[in-house]
Amino acid sequence: MSKELTKRADNYSEWYNELVVKSQLADHSAVRGCMVIKPYGYALWENMRDQLDKMFKETGHVNAYFPLFVPKSLFEAEEANAEGFAKECAIVTHYRLKADPNNKGKLIVDPDAKLEEELVVRPTSEAIIWNTYKGWIQSYRDLPILINQWANVVRWEMRTRLFLRTAEFLWQEGHTAHATKEEAIEETVKMVNVYANFVEEYMAVPVVIGVKSANERFAGAEDTYCIEALMQDGKALQAGTSHFLGQNFAKAFDVKFSDKNNKLEHVWATSWGVSTRLIGALIMAHSDDQGLVMPPKIAPLQIVIVPIYKGDDSKPVIDEKANSMMASLKKLGVRVKYDDSDNARPGWKFAEYELKGVPIRVALGMRDLENNVVEVARRDTKEKQTISLDGIVDYLKNLLDEIQQNIFDRALAYRNEHITEANTWEEFIELLDGKGGFVAAHWDGTGDTEEKIKELTKATIRCIPVNNKQEAGVCILSGKQSRERVLFARAY
Amino acid sequence: MSKELTKRADNYSEWYNELVVKSQLADHSAVRGCMVIKPYGYALWENMRDQLDKMFKETGHVNAYFPLFVPKSLFEAEEANAEGFAKECAIVTHYRLKADPNNKGKLIVDPDAKLEEELVVRPTSEAIIWNTYKGWIQSYRDLPILINQWANVVRWEMRTRLFLRTAEFLWQEGHTAHATKEEAIEETVKMVNVYANFVEEYMAVPVVIGVKSANERFAGAEDTYCIEALMQDGKALQAGTSHFLGQNFAKAFDVKFSDKNNKLEHVWATSWGVSTRLIGALIMAHSDDQGLVMPPKIAPLQIVIVPIYKGDDSKPVIDEKANSMMASLKKLGVRVKYDDSDNARPGWKFAEYELKGVPIRVALGMRDLENNVVEVARRDTKEKQTISLDGIVDYLKNLLDEIQQNIFDRALAYRNEHITEANTWEEFIELLDGKGGFVAAHWDGTGDTEEKIKELTKATIRCIPVNNKQEAGVCILSGKQSRERVLFARAY
Repeated sequence: MSKELTKRADNYSEWYNELVVKSQLADHSAVRGCMVIKPYGYALWENMRDQLDKMFKETGHVNAYFPLFVPKSLFEAEEANAEGFAKECAIVTHYRLKADPNNKGKLIVDPDAKLEEELVVRPTSEAIIWNTYKGWIQSYRDLPILINQWANVVRWEMRTRLFLRTAEFLWQEGHTAHATKEEAIEETVKMVNVYANFVEEYMAVPVVIGVKSANERFAGAEDTYCIEALMQDGKALQAGTSHFLGQNFAKAFDVKFSDKNNKLEHVWATSWGVSTRLIGALIMAHSDDQGLVMPPKIAPLQIVIVPIYKGDDSKPVIDEKANSMMASLKKLGVRVKYDDSDNARPGWKFAEYELKGVPIRVALGMRDLENNVVEVARRDTKEKQTISLDGIVDYLKNLLDEIQQNIFDRALAYRNEHITEANTWEEFIELLDGKGGFVAAHWDGTGDTEEKIKELTKATIRCIPVNNKQEAGVCILSGKQSRERVLFARAY
Repeated sequence: MSKELTKRADNYSEWYNELVVKSQLADHSAVRGCMVIKPYGYALWENMRDQLDKMFKETGHVNAYFPLFVPKSLFEAEEANAEGFAKECAIVTHYRLKADPNNKGKLIVDPDAKLEEELVVRPTSEAIIWNTYKGWIQSYRDLPILINQWANVVRWEMRTRLFLRTAEFLWQEGHTAHATKEEAIEETVKMVNVYANFVEEYMAVPVVIGVKSANERFAGAEDTYCIEALMQDGKALQAGTSHFLGQNFAKAFDVKFSDKNNKLEHVWATSWGVSTRLIGALIMAHSDDQGLVMPPKIAPLQIVIVPIYKGDDSKPVIDEKANSMMASLKKLGVRVKYDDSDNARPGWKFAEYELKGVPIRVALGMRDLENNVVEVARRDTKEKQTISLDGIVDYLKNLLDEIQQNIFDRALAYRNEHITEANTWEEFIELLDGKGGFVAAHWDGTGDTEEKIKELTKATIRCIPVNNKQEAGVCILSGKQSRERVLFARAY
């Protein structure tokens, strides 16, 4: 069939690119580096967003919305942050088009409509938000501010890939303001844990929680916490970050509050975000040569029922059974569809839902019905089983949980097998070029060594795991003293 | 207290501007014409969005996401549409900033990073979406496409007001593609009815459903259906539009499909949208000199419970009662808060929740509790009643419904009283300058007359109501023959 995918073993990168498009998650657009998120991909994002939003609200956060544009003078106020993003910003310079006098029906930018101050399309919103918080915060009674925003952002990437790296992407960004350093750090840690819980429990992707090295920190942060996931090709993927921003933004925007003793202090800040990039992680953690494998908890469609019949006589009987099964499943909150469209054969449908990663497929045929059974196929293991119709609804509901667990366990086993210690430079290289995954190695703690390792191997320090074991050793490159191993990997 | 509002009778416009800011729905930002939607305003928008989204899905639509940017060559493809929006577009011309060599720590637009083709920040997405649909549609089997998008859009307005007219706003835009003209028209009408149902049932704002005159049509549409609401100052507000786009965009982007007879035809289109402007309508339809009046169905907070106590002895008793009441209400899905914060007196809290339009306030005092009663205050009528604690939860739940209905009935009565027939030019002027509201008058059907009336009176044709009574008459301005009255009004 035309949906044949490149095999992972042949070309993992090609497999990924084809899969995203063929499974109808997303498509390329006419705009350089920008994607169209198609209905199937957006339904997945909605499920992820709704669950995350619930978790944010349960931890005391509220949503708000801040402007898309950041005036250049605000953008440049926090210098480290500005420097980090200046090279990849879309800039609005004019506010009007006019008819092209030399080309009927065409438009040109109206030179008379040049902005006095250019506007940066937000690559992240610390600047515009902290400029706003300045007006909201006077006293300790105004703190903490615990705000999240769901928004689109633009980072002008030169090499883009659907979901993983696009010029425009969707994300959420939390921006909190606190009276004390301790409280801000506590918030930073709390949110990286919320991310870890979400990604592990709902996306079934195991993560390592850690702290970034100084080189890999968010521009403008004092500390960046992250969750790092491992893809099937042995490369790591940063799945979410939570930043302790210290007083950097409060100082840049002069945001002070009077504490209980009426003393003026700068406010402490955090920011944290995850994006549609998570969908890339989901795909590369679970999917196979036949297509996507969706974790049931966030799958847009959890169960599909396909009728098998010849002639129209048996169709009404099958319809009746399917509709009653569907009604019972929906009552339990299961996302289920009965695909009795007559423009495709069952085999074609099977392949299509396999490609789309629907966790369970139920085939309903006349002979099976006469025997009071149905055929149930699991997407994760590709097992097919003949199951009695008695208690089928509970069976399917439980099977969804089992699949969720199995996908996670499988990814966890793979991940755990792919954290390997290297004690010499040779071992380090051999692991990176061979087995892949995370390489736990000693590092002397300097940015120079880190930079050199990256140049030589393309591997970066993914993180220093929280609660890392303290263990004396020597840096694999410099041979200098080290107190702990850090996780290196090649990464997306 | 400092939250004193200008009275509506003194200055309606000033009252509105103050109310939006003081009730903490939204605030001005550092970006010209862009607003910050504050948590209270965003929670309201979330409730509106979630309900609309449900209604869109129930009518067979799915969500997707298309790029923020529209390349200029696509933007100008549908000429009427391009002409309509060209004068108010934000244009991205560059993709990088660099350090200002003459000003340490400052940034300038990098002249070496000029885009080959400028990008328009979407003022609406027909162009980018129809350019995408071109790749999705080959056969009648690919139709209909019923897609909605929740997004931000930018229209560079010169005179802005919070919610009513801002340079950036949030909205949803449906974009559907159909095989036949009839089906597209049916969709256009279906969606204007969805809007009417939502605005009347959830926002409690009565609307007139009608069709726009040619002058007032969406740029690029063959027909624009709309819902028109009436504000308390007698001005109309367009609350939503649904456009039948004919084959205009299909022709501009060459989108054809082969029908059942294998004949190539251009696809038929609709688009429809409502925006955060609806929040402006909500405010101006219901609120009073004390603040907002929120319809319970979409109120961020439906019931607030305020404890009244002296000393700390009685507090635990009140807490217990409040928490049990709150738990019961939450079980019924009521959005309720117990405000026992000790940094404000009850009177201050009462005024604050009145300002924010919370539908019901329950005051819990020791003496009342001893008598097994509480004081219940309705925001809509400002009535206070002493109510027995027996069955209080059901009472409150029913009261929410009663308030919703009362707010609607009140607005409906006002609206119905303010549709007045004018049969002469003098009557027309007198009504516009005096009573206000919709003026039902005969019009000769020409754009010239419509334009002249607008110049002379600032009144526009709001719509030709659907199922309008056919009635012979003469145009109030030109004296020419007319077959029906249309609704004129001054409008937001």
